[in-house]
Amino acid sequence: MARWQPGAAQRLVVAAVDLFTEQGYDATTVAQIAERAGVTKSTFFRHFSDKRELLVAGQETLSRLLAEGVAEAPADASPLEAVAAGLERASGAMGPANRELGPRLKAAVAASTELQERDALKSVGLAAAMTTALVARGVPEPTAHLAAEMGVLAFKQGYARWSEGGDRDDEEPLAPYALAALEDLRAATASLG
Amino acid sequence: MARWQPGAAQRLVVAAVDLFTEQGYDATTVAQIAERAGVTKSTFFRHFSDKRELLVAGQETLSRLLAEGVAEAPADASPLEAVAAGLERASGAMGPANRELGPRLKAAVAASTELQERDALKSVGLAAAMTTALVARGVPEPTAHLAAEMGVLAFKQGYARWSEGGDRDDEEPLAPYALAALEDLRAATASLG
Repeated sequence: MARWQPGAAQRLVVAAVDLFTEQGYDATTVAQIAERAGVTKSTFFRHFSDKRELLVAGQETLSRLLAEGVAEAPADASPLEAVAAGLERASGAMGPANRELGPRLKAAVAASTELQERDALKSVGLAAAMTTALVARGVPEPTAHLAAEMGVLAFKQGYARWSEGGDRDDEEPLAPYALAALEDLRAATASLG
Repeated sequence: MARWQPGAAQRLVVAAVDLFTEQGYDATTVAQIAERAGVTKSTFFRHFSDKRELLVAGQETLSRLLAEGVAEAPADASPLEAVAAGLERASGAMGPANRELGPRLKAAVAASTELQERDALKSVGLAAAMTTALVARGVPEPTAHLAAEMGVLAFKQGYARWSEGGDRDDEEPLAPYALAALEDLRAATASLG
């Protein structure tokens, strides 16, 4: 099987995350990111408006996909079934590039309070996107909040487990990992007391 | 009933949060915060090492109290009963100063991406503290994660509702608000599907 070949945008993200880990977010410049990725600065600016945008771009796509999946689930889907549809939609957009990025991103976040703050805000944004989509389906607020938080936890746990196995099979999809994590959380509701 | 009289540390927090709202976190200096609070810069530095610490100090106390409440719940308490004990412990430390701060903090966070990121990281830290305390009680991981997320949601919702009523009764405690929000979330587990 042919190895996956990343495009310029994906190489830029990988280069940026590695540089953030090595020398910190603040100390990393657009010129360094472009050089590490083997592209020119103008190629960087064709893909991203700045260093910050490079981190935010993926989050906006993810929020949109999660919300679309929730919105387009069948009318009779339960709140968690709608969340599962959101996870499937978002997972479908995550390929080998995202999988290889997982351990690198984890290292970068562990090394930087600033990236931890951004990562935390990202989780809040994903939960808010799903909560809004669930409320629009008529799900009452506490249930919508809870189901959305479970969806974010499941997506993060599923992504972590999937990306830990990134050297095994390039074609393995994320969705089963995310859905299994959601099912674990659903089962856990029975033992909350 | 006598109005509550804030100490220097509390006045500094209120002054800082108001200045962050008016002119942003980055543009606000320690000298400005001290002046607004009516104290000297050296008084500021007796209470906080810097501007950032002023925001983080409360969070560390809150994480510790939540975890202690969970840890010291009766051995036969269910995961959510242990979380409720954590909420009660943490709520007990929140007085009129925290209540009056609520709407100001909300305005400051709404006005600043940097404060949104810090606020999001704070939620992650509170959830992690409760998850660790629940796992130490022998609660399996998915249940511990879920119960801790429910605890954070309940604390945030309870605090928001409590602080919206801050002009009514200085002595009203936070705990009933947080516990009612937790009960709403517990009831919502039945309708997740």
